[in-house]
Amino acid sequence: MVRTREHTAKRFGTILFAAAFAIGLAACAASPPDRAAALSGPMSIAKQGSFFIGGHDVHSDTLSTLPNYAASGTVTVDQMYVHYQIPTGAKPLSLTLVHGCCLTGMTWETTPDGRMGWEEYFVRKGYPTYVIDQSDRGRSATDISAINAVRSGKAPISQLPTVFAASHESAWTIFRFGPQYPQTFPGEQFPVDAQASLWQQMVPDWSPSLGTPNPTVPALSQLAIRLGHTVLISHSQAGIYPFQTAAISTQGIAGIVSIEPGECPSATGDLTPYTRLPILVLFGDYVDLSPRWAPRLKACRAFVDAVDHAGGRAQLVLLPDEGIHGNTHMMMQDRNNLDVADWILRWIDTHVGAAGA
Amino acid sequence: MVRTREHTAKRFGTILFAAAFAIGLAACAASPPDRAAALSGPMSIAKQGSFFIGGHDVHSDTLSTLPNYAASGTVTVDQMYVHYQIPTGAKPLSLTLVHGCCLTGMTWETTPDGRMGWEEYFVRKGYPTYVIDQSDRGRSATDISAINAVRSGKAPISQLPTVFAASHESAWTIFRFGPQYPQTFPGEQFPVDAQASLWQQMVPDWSPSLGTPNPTVPALSQLAIRLGHTVLISHSQAGIYPFQTAAISTQGIAGIVSIEPGECPSATGDLTPYTRLPILVLFGDYVDLSPRWAPRLKACRAFVDAVDHAGGRAQLVLLPDEGIHGNTHMMMQDRNNLDVADWILRWIDTHVGAAGA
Repeated sequence: MVRTREHTAKRFGTILFAAAFAIGLAACAASPPDRAAALSGPMSIAKQGSFFIGGHDVHSDTLSTLPNYAASGTVTVDQMYVHYQIPTGAKPLSLTLVHGCCLTGMTWETTPDGRMGWEEYFVRKGYPTYVIDQSDRGRSATDISAINAVRSGKAPISQLPTVFAASHESAWTIFRFGPQYPQTFPGEQFPVDAQASLWQQMVPDWSPSLGTPNPTVPALSQLAIRLGHTVLISHSQAGIYPFQTAAISTQGIAGIVSIEPGECPSATGDLTPYTRLPILVLFGDYVDLSPRWAPRLKACRAFVDAVDHAGGRAQLVLLPDEGIHGNTHMMMQDRNNLDVADWILRWIDTHVGAAGA
Repeated sequence: MVRTREHTAKRFGTILFAAAFAIGLAACAASPPDRAAALSGPMSIAKQGSFFIGGHDVHSDTLSTLPNYAASGTVTVDQMYVHYQIPTGAKPLSLTLVHGCCLTGMTWETTPDGRMGWEEYFVRKGYPTYVIDQSDRGRSATDISAINAVRSGKAPISQLPTVFAASHESAWTIFRFGPQYPQTFPGEQFPVDAQASLWQQMVPDWSPSLGTPNPTVPALSQLAIRLGHTVLISHSQAGIYPFQTAAISTQGIAGIVSIEPGECPSATGDLTPYTRLPILVLFGDYVDLSPRWAPRLKACRAFVDAVDHAGGRAQLVLLPDEGIHGNTHMMMQDRNNLDVADWILRWIDTHVGAAGA
C-alpha cells in the first residue's frame, strides 16, 4: 500500500514535472517570437513630442560677460525636459524613465553598440513612454550665473558651482564592468567593445549644487499627476527620486521600479507613502564584489523589508536569482538588455497592471 | 478697332485673371488636405534611435572636487548628439536640423504652444530626419575641468570658461517678437502667450569657449559623409555651420538651407565650395526693423550674389516676398510654422530633389 502510494505519488510527481517542464518550454519558446515581432517591422506612433515641466525664473546680473548678450535679465532654470512617444493602441499604463548620474535621457535610447534601447522597446510593447533629462542636465537648463559672477569679480571663488564629471576609469568601476578599468567580471554583459560610445553619452553633473531633493523630484511629481497613472522607472543616482516623489504625493504614481538606486529611503523613517505602492528594487550581478554597491544593496534590503513589515508591497530582486546573469549597473544597455526589460514588464504586469491598469 | 482690341484684351485679361484665380484657389485648397493627411493619424517609423559623432578624449586632474568621484581621469568632450527617425517608405534625401544659440534640438520638436514641430512634420512628409544637439550643448557634453581647476586654486580665475545665457528680455528682441520686451510687431506669428515654454527650452551657451569652427562643424561633416545625401538645415548661430562644413568637404551635403544665419561666409573669400551646392538663405519678417538682423541680411545678400556671380546656385529669400507674413526669427515655432516648412520642402524638392535625390 505504502509502496503503491509512494509509486503513485512518484508517478504523479513525474507527470507534474513533465507538465511543468512542457509549460516552461512553451513559455521559453514563446518569448523569442514575441520579441522578434516587437523588434521587427515599422513602429506605429499615435503621438510623440516633448515639453518641459517645472523650473523657476531667476533674475541675474551676470548672465554674460560678452558685449553681444546682456549681462542682466531673467532666465528660467531647474525645469525638466520630457520626451514622449505614445504607440497606437497604447496600454492605459505609462512608463517614465529617469536616468542616473552623469547621463541623460539618451541612456534609454540606442545602446552603445547600436541595439534597441528600452525606450523604443517599451513603446513597441505598447506603453506610452516618457523619457526625461534631469533638471540642470542635458536639455534641461542649469544656472551659470555664478560662473560669470566669479569671472567678473562680483563673487568669491567659493561661489563657483559644485560640478563633476565621472571619468571613464571611475565609471568603469561604478558601472561594475569589472573590479577596475579595464578588467571585466567573467561573463559580464556590457558591450565593452563599444565603450567609446558610452563615454560620448556621459555629461557633467551639477546635482551637488542643487540641494535635496533635486529639482527633478517636484518636476516628476507634477509629471505623474499630469499623466495620472505612470510607473516611475529610475536608475542609480535617480533611484531615490521616485521615493522622494512619492513622499510629496503618491498621486499619479502607479508603481516604482528603482534600478540599482544609489540610495534607498531610510528603513527607520516614515514609510507610509511607500506602503501604498507596488515597489521593485532591482539589482544586477556582481553586487557583492563591489565595495560601492554591496552596502547600498544591504540598506535597500532593510528598507524593502521595513516597507513589507509595515504592510506594503515592496520587493527586492537580484537578477541572478531570477536566472539572468552577468548584468552590470548599466543593465539597460547590456547585451541581454531586452531580457531584463521583459522581466521588468512581467513584474509590472503582475504587480502594477493587476492593481488597476 | 482700338477699343475692340482693348475690349478683347480686357476680356482676355479677365479670363486670365479668373483662370489664375481658379488655379490659385485650387492650389490653396490642395494644401490643407495634404497638410491634414500629414498631421493626422499614426506615424509609421521604420527606424529611430540616437548616436554620437565626434569628440575627443581629455585627461584632467580636476574632474571633481567631491570625495565620491575621482579628480583624475579621462573624459570625452565636444562630441555631437544625433537623434533620428526614418519613416517607412522614406525618401532617399535626408534632412539634418541644426539648432541655434541658447537652444537644443528641442527647437524642432513640439512648439511652445504644443503644436507639431518641423522634426515630426518632416518625418511625416517622408524624410529621414536627423536632429542634433550642438557640441557642448544639451546632451552633448562640455568640459567642466576649468571650473574645478579654479575652484581648487589650481588655475587663475581668467581660466574660467566663457559661457552665457540669453535672458528672456534680450531673446525677445533677438528673436524679433517685437522691438523690445514685451512689445510685439503687428501681425507677428510667434505664440507669445506660450513664451514661458520657450524660456524653459533655453540653455546656457558655451560656444565662446570652443574656438572656430565650433566642434559641431567637423561633426556635421562626419555626419553628412555617413548619411551620404543630406540637406543641412541650420538656424541662427548655427547658420554659418553648414557653410563651414562645406568648406571642409562637400561630400554628403545635398544642399544647404540656412535660416536667418547670424553670419554668412565672406562675399570676398573663396566661394568654390559654395558654388557646388544648392543654397537657400531664408529670412522672415521685420528684418529691416531690427538693428541686429538688418546688417546680417545685407551681408548674406552680398554673399549670395557673389556665389551666383561665381556660377553657383545660391538664393536669398525673404518670406514676405513669398506672401508669407509675420514670421519671427523662431519661424519653426511660429503659428504658421508648417506653412514655412511646406515652402522650404518645395524649395528642396525643386532645387535639391531635382539635383539628384
